[in-house]
Amino acid sequence: MHAEIITIGEELLIGQIVNTNASWIAERLNEAGVAVKQVTVVADSESEILRALSEAFSRSDLVLTTGGLGPTRDDVTKLALCHFFKTGLVLNQEVLEDVSMLFSQRNLALTELNRQQALVPEAAKVLRNSNGTAPGLWLEKEGKICVAMPGVPYEMKAMVEGYILPELKKQRKDSFIVHRTILTQGIGESFLSEIIAEWENNLPPFIKLAYLPSPGMVRLRLSASGAREEDLMIALSEEEEKLRSLIPQYVWGFDRDTLEGVIGKLLVEKGLTVSTAESCTGGYLAHKITSVAGSSAYFMGSIVAYANELKSRFLWINKKLIEKHGAVSREVVEAMALNGCQTMSSDFCMATSGIAGPGGGTAEKPVGTVWIAVAFRDKVSSRLLHLGDQRDRNIARATLATLAMLREKILEI
Amino acid sequence: MHAEIITIGEELLIGQIVNTNASWIAERLNEAGVAVKQVTVVADSESEILRALSEAFSRSDLVLTTGGLGPTRDDVTKLALCHFFKTGLVLNQEVLEDVSMLFSQRNLALTELNRQQALVPEAAKVLRNSNGTAPGLWLEKEGKICVAMPGVPYEMKAMVEGYILPELKKQRKDSFIVHRTILTQGIGESFLSEIIAEWENNLPPFIKLAYLPSPGMVRLRLSASGAREEDLMIALSEEEEKLRSLIPQYVWGFDRDTLEGVIGKLLVEKGLTVSTAESCTGGYLAHKITSVAGSSAYFMGSIVAYANELKSRFLWINKKLIEKHGAVSREVVEAMALNGCQTMSSDFCMATSGIAGPGGGTAEKPVGTVWIAVAFRDKVSSRLLHLGDQRDRNIARATLATLAMLREKILEI
Repeated sequence: MHAEIITIGEELLIGQIVNTNASWIAERLNEAGVAVKQVTVVADSESEILRALSEAFSRSDLVLTTGGLGPTRDDVTKLALCHFFKTGLVLNQEVLEDVSMLFSQRNLALTELNRQQALVPEAAKVLRNSNGTAPGLWLEKEGKICVAMPGVPYEMKAMVEGYILPELKKQRKDSFIVHRTILTQGIGESFLSEIIAEWENNLPPFIKLAYLPSPGMVRLRLSASGAREEDLMIALSEEEEKLRSLIPQYVWGFDRDTLEGVIGKLLVEKGLTVSTAESCTGGYLAHKITSVAGSSAYFMGSIVAYANELKSRFLWINKKLIEKHGAVSREVVEAMALNGCQTMSSDFCMATSGIAGPGGGTAEKPVGTVWIAVAFRDKVSSRLLHLGDQRDRNIARATLATLAMLREKILEI
Repeated sequence: MHAEIITIGEELLIGQIVNTNASWIAERLNEAGVAVKQVTVVADSESEILRALSEAFSRSDLVLTTGGLGPTRDDVTKLALCHFFKTGLVLNQEVLEDVSMLFSQRNLALTELNRQQALVPEAAKVLRNSNGTAPGLWLEKEGKICVAMPGVPYEMKAMVEGYILPELKKQRKDSFIVHRTILTQGIGESFLSEIIAEWENNLPPFIKLAYLPSPGMVRLRLSASGAREEDLMIALSEEEEKLRSLIPQYVWGFDRDTLEGVIGKLLVEKGLTVSTAESCTGGYLAHKITSVAGSSAYFMGSIVAYANELKSRFLWINKKLIEKHGAVSREVVEAMALNGCQTMSSDFCMATSGIAGPGGGTAEKPVGTVWIAVAFRDKVSSRLLHLGDQRDRNIARATLATLAMLREKILEI
């Protein structure tokens, strides 16, 4: 079964809001084994909606729309639906009661405009809306289904979860899709693809591989589709195992794991703590660690020592060491990490020192030169990164590389 | 001129990522006076891309695509373009040099797969990519334009801003649209609209006002359209001046200003420094400040004192004060800010202490209870925030409120 999503609304076409409805629906449908073939965004225009509907119906079995069901004159989705399904509007008593109830609860008088919310296409099955005035509308034609929903996210979500997904599950007997995403770090897309080429070429035809690169990491998504969910799960596990064995040192997590979340679990498991001693990452490392709920169990804190005098005061960095090697050096970053363990009473300390840019570079140490280090008590490892010239990306990539290094070091214990 | 956006990628159709590229491009195009007719999301499939391209070309004059230009076999946008524009792939020497350069800068060997990034449709004009390996491709057919860009946001953005928008501006001779966005903080949309109602009603017909609310702030965008750019600029300036005079205390910036950027300029102007003493914001305040290029001129550093023992060690918070009032209290947050000025040798210090959640709340201090403070040498101000139950939103909103408070305090000097 293929589905399409049509999101209706001017605010999406002028970029005022991001289309989170479409990604949310797509995710739910995929989890339910329904592949989404296309997402289309069109304006609140009867002809545009009609065109999008008829194109989507020509390709797919299920079309979900959001938006344009409000009471004002720029909401024309119902008219387009009547046109497309060759039906007319009739007053639905249940919806009228729902809308009246909602208004009386809020001590508001029911206006004529709001009464019109109870007018629905005669051919439609009504999905009642307990969170707002616009009902959902379920229409069928030649074995294909269209469900129109309001654009307000929580009203739409209640309809998808409460009605549409259960209904689809009943109807779908023989077609499943399951996914598994393997998260890698420390190797680029092209190198990765060379290492796993042979395995990739030998994937069974019902399993597809997608590369999803993002700054500093590559996610590998395996998708299996077929008639028996259990068989798909088994086949996916087998392929995942093979893949892992080819690149064990690069795999750090699965599906929706985050590096900071994985690190948190490992630290809790081992009863260890961490702190950060940051220069060029400017607090972003600490932010990543503390974005995990419960991180206060293993995160002591951070010294963001932007000024060299704070490196001396809180991290005991000898001024002569900075004079001799510069703040961006192996010597200084290793001392920051080692001393950070002591001044912050933590088992691990991550440290960074670099030139985030765009200014501050020299011939010897150009913008993007970043030293990172991870200390475990009295042992320390460090690495030199050569990043680019964009400040925000350099901060993000240095942070990611340092987190990845911490994860490795935790695993070595 | 109508435009369409085609974003290509399986990850959008399974809801793994939200389509921020489409909304960003839509916003830029609208600012440039180009209306977006449709956004389409399709998979990395040659036939799907071809279909989407030909449908978009039948409706619109400009088609921008993102995604599917990577080196791996699931990236097929270039093949679809060759098909659609009836052209073949040729090696582009400039692109090859760019890609080689990028790899040598990173001390990586150039693989055959990456060399293939230099294969481009013969009919295409190449938009060089200084941030990644995939070039942008500008193709024309029957007076209509298609530009294919990589899906990595910052690579795409550099092409839109550096090449596409200037090129579109050149092509439009007699129709201009200019914008000015006024950034306000500390007042809700409905109150704002009451204060400025009369001014709004008297705007000349060629100037439009849009309210763009986002968490913690309201942006007011003025758009003027007409045939003479200079006249529009003058009229906009006049209206902006009138608007400012109505709400001087709420306006903190313009267009793409950020609060941290505005603060940076003020601190440089006044020759003052700042530090942060963070608990619940966990380094995010320091990150915001250091995300501004040149912040090392006025940012000393941050103590992220997650563990109470670090609050005592680095911020001289008496343990008895914490025992008496709790770490989340006016007394503690004010002491953190005041002592932070001293221990970090800064003129200002921002401090936060709160319960970000989801755990850790009590009946007296539920999740979302956050104290913030700003000290200037030996004077301090503080405020209690009642936020929600989402950790990431609480951290972001507490940070924004603290930055806004710092800005006010700097202006008082």
